[in-house]
Amino acid sequence: MLRTWLTIIITSLHGASAIGQETLPGQRSETNIDRSEFPRVHEDGRVTFRINAPEAKAVQLVPGGSDNGLGQGPFEMTKVENGNWTFTTEPAVPGFHYYWFVVDGLLVCDQGTYSYFGYNRECSGVEVPDPNGEFYAIKRVPHGALRSHWFQSSVTGRWRRAIVYTPPGYDSSETRYPVLYLQHGSGENQFGWTEQGKANFIIDNLLADDACLPMIVVMENGMIARRAGSNNSMARNSHNEAFADVMIQDLIPEIDRSFRTLNDREHRALAGLSMGAGQALRIGLANPETFGYVGLFSGGGTSSVPFSSASGLKLFWGGWGAGEAARFGGTKKLVEQAQAAGINAQWLEVERTSHEWQTWRSCLQAFAPLLFR
Amino acid sequence: MLRTWLTIIITSLHGASAIGQETLPGQRSETNIDRSEFPRVHEDGRVTFRINAPEAKAVQLVPGGSDNGLGQGPFEMTKVENGNWTFTTEPAVPGFHYYWFVVDGLLVCDQGTYSYFGYNRECSGVEVPDPNGEFYAIKRVPHGALRSHWFQSSVTGRWRRAIVYTPPGYDSSETRYPVLYLQHGSGENQFGWTEQGKANFIIDNLLADDACLPMIVVMENGMIARRAGSNNSMARNSHNEAFADVMIQDLIPEIDRSFRTLNDREHRALAGLSMGAGQALRIGLANPETFGYVGLFSGGGTSSVPFSSASGLKLFWGGWGAGEAARFGGTKKLVEQAQAAGINAQWLEVERTSHEWQTWRSCLQAFAPLLFR
Repeated sequence: MLRTWLTIIITSLHGASAIGQETLPGQRSETNIDRSEFPRVHEDGRVTFRINAPEAKAVQLVPGGSDNGLGQGPFEMTKVENGNWTFTTEPAVPGFHYYWFVVDGLLVCDQGTYSYFGYNRECSGVEVPDPNGEFYAIKRVPHGALRSHWFQSSVTGRWRRAIVYTPPGYDSSETRYPVLYLQHGSGENQFGWTEQGKANFIIDNLLADDACLPMIVVMENGMIARRAGSNNSMARNSHNEAFADVMIQDLIPEIDRSFRTLNDREHRALAGLSMGAGQALRIGLANPETFGYVGLFSGGGTSSVPFSSASGLKLFWGGWGAGEAARFGGTKKLVEQAQAAGINAQWLEVERTSHEWQTWRSCLQAFAPLLFR
Repeated sequence: MLRTWLTIIITSLHGASAIGQETLPGQRSETNIDRSEFPRVHEDGRVTFRINAPEAKAVQLVPGGSDNGLGQGPFEMTKVENGNWTFTTEPAVPGFHYYWFVVDGLLVCDQGTYSYFGYNRECSGVEVPDPNGEFYAIKRVPHGALRSHWFQSSVTGRWRRAIVYTPPGYDSSETRYPVLYLQHGSGENQFGWTEQGKANFIIDNLLADDACLPMIVVMENGMIARRAGSNNSMARNSHNEAFADVMIQDLIPEIDRSFRTLNDREHRALAGLSMGAGQALRIGLANPETFGYVGLFSGGGTSSVPFSSASGLKLFWGGWGAGEAARFGGTKKLVEQAQAAGINAQWLEVERTSHEWQTWRSCLQAFAPLLFR
């Protein structure tokens, strides 16, 4: 709101023509590269997309998936002046949404935004501001460090790059910290939780409010690299198995060697979103001596699980968006099974959101304060 | 070579049809996303590009700039079977090269590679292996940490994200370290030196060979954020001035506050490539009490410089690729002026390379060992 008013004031002061700009409604998405005026987000959450394609015969806007908050696409764009094509959505769900264009049958990214890895490739992204989004905003509070950490995997024989958040004060203390392993969804990678999910700012803000304990957060690539050219989605089962091995045999020992961790199950949590929720469920419950806390964000499957083997679990947690509740009834059922088995199990349904990042940001905000108590 | 032979052996063992793959010549570029077979790099350095665009009437391959090692494009691609368009370059210069496609007049990225920020937007990239490229390979040596570090700028009033390399051992020691500030070129950003340039692996490898002193390396965005919608290249002078203020007033104090630095000019260096070389020249020589070492990689301009005011400089260094020597004669002239002024000034001409990342990787490899001695 403040930003909108400031924009109006500044535009009034300078006059649109004086600075050589069209007067455009709405504000630039924060995902836009510096010189790009589109996509633009309106006060009511509608989003206007534009692409310049003078020679095209047909252009569609395609939201990532059918359920990502921009509406049920694809949407036919309209050709306007100067070879531009445009489309304005209905009010979108707040938060981050993937999208791309299809120009005469060719899938292309919007050259106006930074790239965000999803759907097994680079995508365009738009960020719709949320009046309740202060919890993931970058603020004048101490910030943790976000590190790329390379290590060699005995399972894959390759180098891997983990993203590791160390909390404020890590560098200047000798404290040992608990660790949350936090996994992305299908087709995403280890950058998703910070670049799309703003996990680092969420933890920074919780810490500034004394709402969670200082922790290390480790994010890895769960779409495990296999033979070049194999199809990720077809090989999901095999890569889930391979990732379980990487997690237990490579990643956890590497993190415990390289960072000042508390390395027992009381100080180790595993959570993930969508596909990553399934990985958290399988890896977490199969290794009860390793993880004391398991979180499923919008996923985990519907099959019944041997909670009896996980009786030492300190917390089993499930979360999903209200808009996807019908699809993720299985997650709720798992929480109920865990409760029936005598495990501390809790759940959260996030109002208004669906199978998209705003749900998962909210899940992290709710889950992190429960850890390591 | 080993990788090529292994590929041949594995392909022979499995049989191409048994694994449902075409037998394709060359090897995948290391910039490719997991499922992508193109671009492919041949043993002799030729590169084959492919894009699937069944409805297109004309497709060009466009190398970034006219001088980036892939040859003088744009190149008309040829339509082959199944709606694919293909083009194979002449043997390319080893190293990283930007590129994109133009499909019926529309600039598009290759959906087969990760994105690399250049030309003021996300680009596709290809990596041509170099038989002499061991110096930037990821190896079984101690690796420094690569951190994103956010801070608020008093100059721009915005949050900025610096990339900071801390050397192996930083976390477990109480040592203070010298700092190299290292800037990218026009249209790139703070991620260029690591994602394209592999600066972190270059320093890791030099350290493992005892060839340079442990140092912190700080990489910032020199295309300074100004009003939304302004054109970067037109405003270059003003953003160079703004960046000088950010560097001196915000960045250096922030780094000295946040990391264990040695904070005098004997332990502070500034270098940059192309536009960044110009920034290093101007900021470095205008602040002789701040920087003891200045490096210009492929740039810096031709104007004469008051080296008399920089008599305390410990090193003035210039480097460029042989293929761009005619354009960067000015850099050599600056080195000669510095020598005439009694300053320790050295230069390097990198064989075979031109205005592209292989030159700048080689410059860093040669420059870093000379620092802080």
